[in-house]
Amino acid sequence: MPLDLDADVVALTEAVVDIESVSRNEQQLCDDIEQALRDLPHLEVTRIGHSLVARTELGRDERVVIAGHIDTVPLNDNLPARNDGTLLHGLGTCDMKGGVAVALKLAHDVVEPNRDVTYVFYEAEEIDDVFNGLGIVAAKRPELVQADFAILMEPSDAVVEAGCQGTLRVDVITRGERAHSARAWRGSNAIHAAGEVLRRLSDYEPRKPVIDGLEYHEGLNAVMISGGVATNVLPDECVVAVNYRYAPDRSEQEALAFVEEVFDGFELRVTDSAPGALPGLGVPAARDFVAAVGGEPNPKFGWTDVARFTGLGIPAVNFGPGDPMLAHKQEEHVPLEQLRSCEAKLRSWLGHDQ
Amino acid sequence: MPLDLDADVVALTEAVVDIESVSRNEQQLCDDIEQALRDLPHLEVTRIGHSLVARTELGRDERVVIAGHIDTVPLNDNLPARNDGTLLHGLGTCDMKGGVAVALKLAHDVVEPNRDVTYVFYEAEEIDDVFNGLGIVAAKRPELVQADFAILMEPSDAVVEAGCQGTLRVDVITRGERAHSARAWRGSNAIHAAGEVLRRLSDYEPRKPVIDGLEYHEGLNAVMISGGVATNVLPDECVVAVNYRYAPDRSEQEALAFVEEVFDGFELRVTDSAPGALPGLGVPAARDFVAAVGGEPNPKFGWTDVARFTGLGIPAVNFGPGDPMLAHKQEEHVPLEQLRSCEAKLRSWLGHDQ
Repeated sequence: MPLDLDADVVALTEAVVDIESVSRNEQQLCDDIEQALRDLPHLEVTRIGHSLVARTELGRDERVVIAGHIDTVPLNDNLPARNDGTLLHGLGTCDMKGGVAVALKLAHDVVEPNRDVTYVFYEAEEIDDVFNGLGIVAAKRPELVQADFAILMEPSDAVVEAGCQGTLRVDVITRGERAHSARAWRGSNAIHAAGEVLRRLSDYEPRKPVIDGLEYHEGLNAVMISGGVATNVLPDECVVAVNYRYAPDRSEQEALAFVEEVFDGFELRVTDSAPGALPGLGVPAARDFVAAVGGEPNPKFGWTDVARFTGLGIPAVNFGPGDPMLAHKQEEHVPLEQLRSCEAKLRSWLGHDQ
Repeated sequence: MPLDLDADVVALTEAVVDIESVSRNEQQLCDDIEQALRDLPHLEVTRIGHSLVARTELGRDERVVIAGHIDTVPLNDNLPARNDGTLLHGLGTCDMKGGVAVALKLAHDVVEPNRDVTYVFYEAEEIDDVFNGLGIVAAKRPELVQADFAILMEPSDAVVEAGCQGTLRVDVITRGERAHSARAWRGSNAIHAAGEVLRRLSDYEPRKPVIDGLEYHEGLNAVMISGGVATNVLPDECVVAVNYRYAPDRSEQEALAFVEEVFDGFELRVTDSAPGALPGLGVPAARDFVAAVGGEPNPKFGWTDVARFTGLGIPAVNFGPGDPMLAHKQEEHVPLEQLRSCEAKLRSWLGHDQ
């Protein structure tokens, strides 16, 4: 069944949510979006992998990007979507198919925006950076995403969230020597050695710097742990994957130096690193947008592709329906009212009041 | 090619090793052993699955079991056997086809032993207990394995190893609450909670009780650890698989009570439990055997089917060629001299000096 972009934003969100698109399984949803946009005469559509770029080409003075990832974290017994009249519940409702649906509505309805718009619907944001659809598009066709300003429709409770924290992931590795578990004294247990890694994580006290009036809140967490050879063998390796989320006043290098200090004496392997982005609310395009949609900007804790836009020299903010605290939670949901208000505010900003 | 039981024990071991019999693939080897023993007039042969029982029926006052499993752990690029003149190398040479070959030689050559002998060649010792051929024979035909004493030809460096440690495996489970790792304060980290589990493991002091003059050495070890949902999510569960190897003065219930005390406050799930076996060296048949083969008995650390015989009310010891430390290792091997000395000592004990 094709996506119906004439439906209202709530019905459209529900339809998009019900097309399951856990990372690496975005093909169907991308096909459906492509089919819905491809033949609209006011859009120029380019597909790269399972990411789609749709641009108006009106020759306006200003061009803005409105972007959203179409993948979700894994299923957690939370599909299909359920509309209780106030909230829409289900995987991706909050992060971030509500935002995707708003962008789809705008792409379909706003045929003559007052600034040129580049819509980007992209794959694989929730997994390893190397797969990130926005990164791939920017690498292969940088001219497609060039703009004066970007709005990433990540959940932000329908207020502007500025800046974003950086993220660093390292494997902390402990080693031992295998032995039969009946003769443990002949070997050395790598899992036991990881106890000290977990102790340092428990002792960690988060930093909370204030930047441009926004208070950030860092975090250092084990996100994965694995070790073991067989149920009767002392393990010779244990790997703790640690994720450091840091305020944007630290560079990637400073973040790594901090983590190296915390795990001094342990073997480290960096597996992922993405810098934060300073709020940048002083930039005129950002200031205009904040004034247009109203409200008091918040700091962004989660890493988002705002930082990728910053890296491309494009000022960017998060602005989308849904409570960011609910992202990646089984019970994620989005208020129907926020879907409608985000759509209305952006529509108005693009000069297309209903 | 049929097994040649007239060959010497070294050649026979090599032939048995070269018939690959990784657990669940014992049919060929069992067929070959059956063919070699079936028509010997002094033996009564019964096959159950791929396990074979061969009994002398001389009406002696005493009956002993001589048993060995015919399966091996998985291939590890270590077949065929290789004889370097001092050692025979290859999968199963140590654990325990050397012992099987010694038993085959005795079964073939010792036609009038001074005590009745029940030879048991059985399948599937290296895998889940439910498949164990000795267990199946004892369950289906208990009268076939009844005896006054049992010798399990597991590798013991050709000296008597008495008793065996029990083994208990539990999963120690910690729970938390998922949250995006950028907003860690909204959730609770199950991997961090496992730090306390690892701390208690590190603090553990092994008990080393002396039983019948033999010093045992317990062990409490994490053998597996796993936790994590995604690289940007606080994990809500972490599972530490812990293996407790305990001296045979503790029952299965006492072992579990000890582990429950160590991990007081944590959720436990028992995944495997097998009791130890007391050395039982005070039993006359055991004392006679030790006197006959000489040397100082050692305690057995690894779990073996000695405990199964104990459960059947049959005193039992391990006595076989090969270093038990080499069991399950790629480089396992057996000294030719131990093959010959084990054969000679058992032959003598059965009143059949060459």
